[in-house]
Amino acid sequence: MFPASDTVLVAAPAATAVFTAVLTGGPVSRVRLARRLGLSSAAVTKAARPLIERGYLHELAATDRTGPGAGRPASPLAVRADREFFVGVKITADELIGVVCDLRAEVRATARRPLADPAVDGVLTDVGRLVDDLLDAVPEHRARVRRLGLSLSGDVDRTTGLVRYSPFLHWRDVPLGHRAAEATGLTVTVENDVKALTAAEHWFGEGVGAESFALVTVGTGIGCGLVVNGRLVSGSYGVAGEIGHIAVDAAGPDCHCGGRGCVEAIAGTDALVAQARERTGRPDLGFDEAVALARGGHEAVRAVFTRAGGAIGCGIAAVANLVGPTRIVVSGEGLAAYDLFDTPIRTSFERQAFGAAARCPLSIRPLPFEEWARGAAAVSIQSLVLP
Amino acid sequence: MFPASDTVLVAAPAATAVFTAVLTGGPVSRVRLARRLGLSSAAVTKAARPLIERGYLHELAATDRTGPGAGRPASPLAVRADREFFVGVKITADELIGVVCDLRAEVRATARRPLADPAVDGVLTDVGRLVDDLLDAVPEHRARVRRLGLSLSGDVDRTTGLVRYSPFLHWRDVPLGHRAAEATGLTVTVENDVKALTAAEHWFGEGVGAESFALVTVGTGIGCGLVVNGRLVSGSYGVAGEIGHIAVDAAGPDCHCGGRGCVEAIAGTDALVAQARERTGRPDLGFDEAVALARGGHEAVRAVFTRAGGAIGCGIAAVANLVGPTRIVVSGEGLAAYDLFDTPIRTSFERQAFGAAARCPLSIRPLPFEEWARGAAAVSIQSLVLP
Ligand SMILES: [Zn+2]
Ligand SMILES: [Zn+2]
Repeated sequence: MFPASDTVLVAAPAATAVFTAVLTGGPVSRVRLARRLGLSSAAVTKAARPLIERGYLHELAATDRTGPGAGRPASPLAVRADREFFVGVKITADELIGVVCDLRAEVRATARRPLADPAVDGVLTDVGRLVDDLLDAVPEHRARVRRLGLSLSGDVDRTTGLVRYSPFLHWRDVPLGHRAAEATGLTVTVENDVKALTAAEHWFGEGVGAESFALVTVGTGIGCGLVVNGRLVSGSYGVAGEIGHIAVDAAGPDCHCGGRGCVEAIAGTDALVAQARERTGRPDLGFDEAVALARGGHEAVRAVFTRAGGAIGCGIAAVANLVGPTRIVVSGEGLAAYDLFDTPIRTSFERQAFGAAARCPLSIRPLPFEEWARGAAAVSIQSLVLP
Repeated sequence: MFPASDTVLVAAPAATAVFTAVLTGGPVSRVRLARRLGLSSAAVTKAARPLIERGYLHELAATDRTGPGAGRPASPLAVRADREFFVGVKITADELIGVVCDLRAEVRATARRPLADPAVDGVLTDVGRLVDDLLDAVPEHRARVRRLGLSLSGDVDRTTGLVRYSPFLHWRDVPLGHRAAEATGLTVTVENDVKALTAAEHWFGEGVGAESFALVTVGTGIGCGLVVNGRLVSGSYGVAGEIGHIAVDAAGPDCHCGGRGCVEAIAGTDALVAQARERTGRPDLGFDEAVALARGGHEAVRAVFTRAGGAIGCGIAAVANLVGPTRIVVSGEGLAAYDLFDTPIRTSFERQAFGAAARCPLSIRPLPFEEWARGAAAVSIQSLVLP
């Protein structure tokens, strides 16, 4: 987080626990909070007081209470979602996607901007312009935005804001956090895009309350964010969640990673296009056309998607068999072709998941591109409480 | 742990942390302990005092200090390994393997006993006799054993001591912890055999100090114990570490689990024997003979082991790619044929591990059968501090 001098909203363990629980779990009474967090009621009240004074939390009156606590005498604590806004920007090779989110990670505004130049200076200039576009539209956002979350694919050190390697942008060791803080005057977080999306699901989506949880993204790359025992898995050597490079077919195609029969070499967007071109003899075929052919009943192209779904299902089953997540979300821009993937993914998952691991629910759904930017904003929200 | 009334040695968080650190990390000065655990020196001294008074810890004098702290003025704290002994018993389908271990999980005595009858009553009788055999041999052991650890393959609930399902013994929902405590008068822990072995490596072996760690066992079954962020992964649905049922070959053989091309269906002992029989046309061939043929240069049989090693390497790479352990140990009775497996495992791991994940060191080594029983004893030692 940059500049490092910017203080987090809460630092004491009790205040962090209280704020995080209300932020992610919705309105909740002090009594329930105390029980859930193993704190005394007095400790909860003490932790909440400065957050109420600063306008981040408020007490719901009897009339505007909803949900499980409705009708009971205790006044639940709730987050004031519009107390602060956050900009999230996903950086791709040719475009920036931006959102403004509130404290509950609800998207309030969106904007996109083509990327003229993938060099660092050019990207920083365009990020600054996109932030201005977003904030100029709504004075309330301009007034209450202090933080910017950036996400991009590749090897990112969230702690230092360093982009170690971005294959699509051809960046190595770029101190993006520092540079973007200088360029925008905001407090900046930087995270890998899949991990950022996982953060959004973990705090504000289907992962809320799950002890362990996996998010699988399907697109040009096939990645996975893993939460185990309540914590994101980051890997001792910086590698984790590389479901795309699990080998599922000994006779499968070579992968750009040096492996053979990787999930990504069978089911990544580029692999799908290459196989569809081969099956149709049309070297100019694009992804959308391949999808249209498969939907239109072209058997050979449809078989390419079926095989791909089978490979993805095997990869997901490997996750379930090894770490046993409470639930798994499968998403990503590749799932615009969701209808072609859904059945083969489920069929191969069910065949390959071991015993009770097959009980793990799969949510398979498309991913609007703005969700990636929302992930970046979610990491920025997390930086209110995580150092 | 049964009977539940038996109190753990230490319960307060600071005492647990101090005892665990000295037990697993060897002699260490109070100053270092305080720094490592984030405690004050006074808190370390207070936590250590009752453990010293009860004889579990002692202060090393200047002259008997060894290791990194030698020669410095502070007196390191060390475990008195012979303060208490622990019996560990691994239950297989036809044999019990038993050990007596000291507090540092060093094996002090071993014994085996054929299992006449796999029904629960028969097994309990034989466990009682094996414990007597072990303890009658050394009066010091008899006097200082209070705990017994049991391990077996299958679905075990360590918390309740319940064996939910043991395929080899044909047991379902056997309250083994309660029954064995009644039968022996000892305090009993029950754990899955692979998890128990992982516990031994995590506290007393190559996993000490590793933030995350995997132990892969190769034999009739192929399993894996996983420690992530310092905690054993147990799976939301009771399934975790099932590396044997990761699909690595789309055209591979059907597996008893209902999957296809599973690691175990290619590289488990039964699968190896079946393939070797097919290649040689000898339906009576046994595992040891197959190993001898492969070592003797029988190309077709050797190819069976090479393919199996390749499948195991792919499974291990999946573990490295998904969770990024600090190190991986590969062991098990199947690795009596270690020389046939070592190179193909490493070759396929290196090909398939993604980027920096290939830096994860592999220890590939045979597993003496007594190690399984030592695993059971290690879980019993852990129950001194874990509830
Ligand atoms: Zn690959
Ligand atoms: Zn299987």
